[in-house]
Amino acid sequence: MLVAHYAGNRTMTVGRAEPNPPGFGQVQIAVAFNGICGTDLHILSGHMDARVAMPAIIGHEMSGTISALGEGVDGWAVGDPVTVMPLAWDGTCPACLAGNRHICQNLDFVGIDSPGALQGRWNVDAGLLVALPPSLSLRHAALVEPTAVAVHDVHRSELEPGQKAVVIGGGPIGLLIAAVSRSCGGDVVVIELDPGRRQRIADLGYTVLDPRDDTVGWVEEWTGGAGADVVFEVSGAAAAVLGAVDYAKVRGTLVVVAIHPEPRPVNLQRIFWRELRLLGARVYQREDFETAVALLEAGEIPADALITETVPLAEIQSAFDTLTAGAAMKILIDVQSGQETA
Amino acid sequence: MLVAHYAGNRTMTVGRAEPNPPGFGQVQIAVAFNGICGTDLHILSGHMDARVAMPAIIGHEMSGTISALGEGVDGWAVGDPVTVMPLAWDGTCPACLAGNRHICQNLDFVGIDSPGALQGRWNVDAGLLVALPPSLSLRHAALVEPTAVAVHDVHRSELEPGQKAVVIGGGPIGLLIAAVSRSCGGDVVVIELDPGRRQRIADLGYTVLDPRDDTVGWVEEWTGGAGADVVFEVSGAAAAVLGAVDYAKVRGTLVVVAIHPEPRPVNLQRIFWRELRLLGARVYQREDFETAVALLEAGEIPADALITETVPLAEIQSAFDTLTAGAAMKILIDVQSGQETA
Repeated sequence: MLVAHYAGNRTMTVGRAEPNPPGFGQVQIAVAFNGICGTDLHILSGHMDARVAMPAIIGHEMSGTISALGEGVDGWAVGDPVTVMPLAWDGTCPACLAGNRHICQNLDFVGIDSPGALQGRWNVDAGLLVALPPSLSLRHAALVEPTAVAVHDVHRSELEPGQKAVVIGGGPIGLLIAAVSRSCGGDVVVIELDPGRRQRIADLGYTVLDPRDDTVGWVEEWTGGAGADVVFEVSGAAAAVLGAVDYAKVRGTLVVVAIHPEPRPVNLQRIFWRELRLLGARVYQREDFETAVALLEAGEIPADALITETVPLAEIQSAFDTLTAGAAMKILIDVQSGQETA
Repeated sequence: MLVAHYAGNRTMTVGRAEPNPPGFGQVQIAVAFNGICGTDLHILSGHMDARVAMPAIIGHEMSGTISALGEGVDGWAVGDPVTVMPLAWDGTCPACLAGNRHICQNLDFVGIDSPGALQGRWNVDAGLLVALPPSLSLRHAALVEPTAVAVHDVHRSELEPGQKAVVIGGGPIGLLIAAVSRSCGGDVVVIELDPGRRQRIADLGYTVLDPRDDTVGWVEEWTGGAGADVVFEVSGAAAAVLGAVDYAKVRGTLVVVAIHPEPRPVNLQRIFWRELRLLGARVYQREDFETAVALLEAGEIPADALITETVPLAEIQSAFDTLTAGAAMKILIDVQSGQETA
């Protein structure tokens, strides 16, 4: 089979390997599609080399069908369409014991801390499987994982129907948060610097603002002087963090979605003055995954607009290069393409 | 009567004035004691000159007895012991309409934005009065307002009985938060740089740590590797903000109590990683005031340990100088002292 590896030095390599049979309690998946996410770009950039054991098989936004069952696996059959919730917790740390297994203090994020989906056959613990409905295409199903991120973020914000949300950053996760917020009855505005992305999001019927305009004044007017109920910081930019508080109403909520590797200046005076609530939101829980499947199946997620390109596994480096250049939304890797000759 | 004024240039002056009769809906209070708070020190330092109309009668932590009733006042009698909840809201802004009148978008903080209690006779709207029980001394009752701040902070944190709280900063508000947390069944540690304050707080039976020691390791061990349920940032120090997240458990709560005039670097990565919640907390609601009265009456607040000195109104400048030098906890101004000869 073909396997992609992160080999360090900003390089993805593609090689051949023999598939292993699934172990006890595992299934083997014929991976259909795997989306490249921001974390994968961080890995390629070398920022996560201390965490990733090279050469690393990465990839965690995937869809596929079960190709073999290991011993001790019940309730699944060869041919079942599935995705994987890529979190393996220890079940014994204080966070797990308090019911927060998804952010286990010793979490194994599958596809980062252990081998991921960018290979023709992937063995995973059956407990990580999430069933896909037959009516959901495997292309769209590769968006379940990032959609679950957005579902988790919106759920964490406690956005209520009729409330107003500001999404700072119109990349794939920002757009997914906008779509999930709308599916929850929220009224959404997206703030995005890149004109191409602004156009793409506007074409989907969203209000989109340029951050260089008077966005605070716009939100003030939009909300009758109150401010927005919820602000999602998805851009990762220091300036966005500093300004995010100015959109929020008294007792409003800010959700930090983006990864900020360095401490960022935060306007604590405004957080104090308006009694704001700033929440961290990381990954997802199983119900978020199941909601994500349902939203994709119901057509509530603009999957075709999000997927700007599909690239064969053998050409994975070009997909990373395109994404690094900021010229795409979501690129899927077609993992089965070329496998038959491998 | 004697009146103290903030006259700019780090100066408090004391002069004489004729008392005015209370207006419609007002009562006149013979102010007994007025505590000096951190905000008053900010005013003296000149940092709030843009907000304070000079010469300004400041003071908002007070106790007294009603000395006269204006027209239209029901339910109060001359001689009633009272304190004042110094918040006047407009009742019409979006925050008020949403039920958050205590942080009205156009809040008049009495004693900052309008005349305060550092005068022999003070006229205030009867709606701001909070009744004091006869068993509570007027000296202790001057602590109702700062105690209400602490009650509000702890209430906002949702600290539950048996939970563990870290209080960063052992000044008057930090100590009050520790006392209120303990009255709620919380287990508390205070982190304080000043050895004199550490000793004073330790003498009250609290565990106190020096921030230069391995406080993170201590909290880790104290909490069985989980981290604290709640962290209160009361120090106002940039380094404390940066480190505060390291004490908190997964899904733990940080409350920003101190005023941070400049944006502060915040470790958003840790907030994301542990799904922390950072809350602003400002002033109080009426139920916080009523709880504060009850806690003081019940002896749950170390009032005598907090009040390090009582100074006559005529010597108010010396009280500010002592506090600015960091050599005291709470200093009360005896507002009636000297009034009979004024």
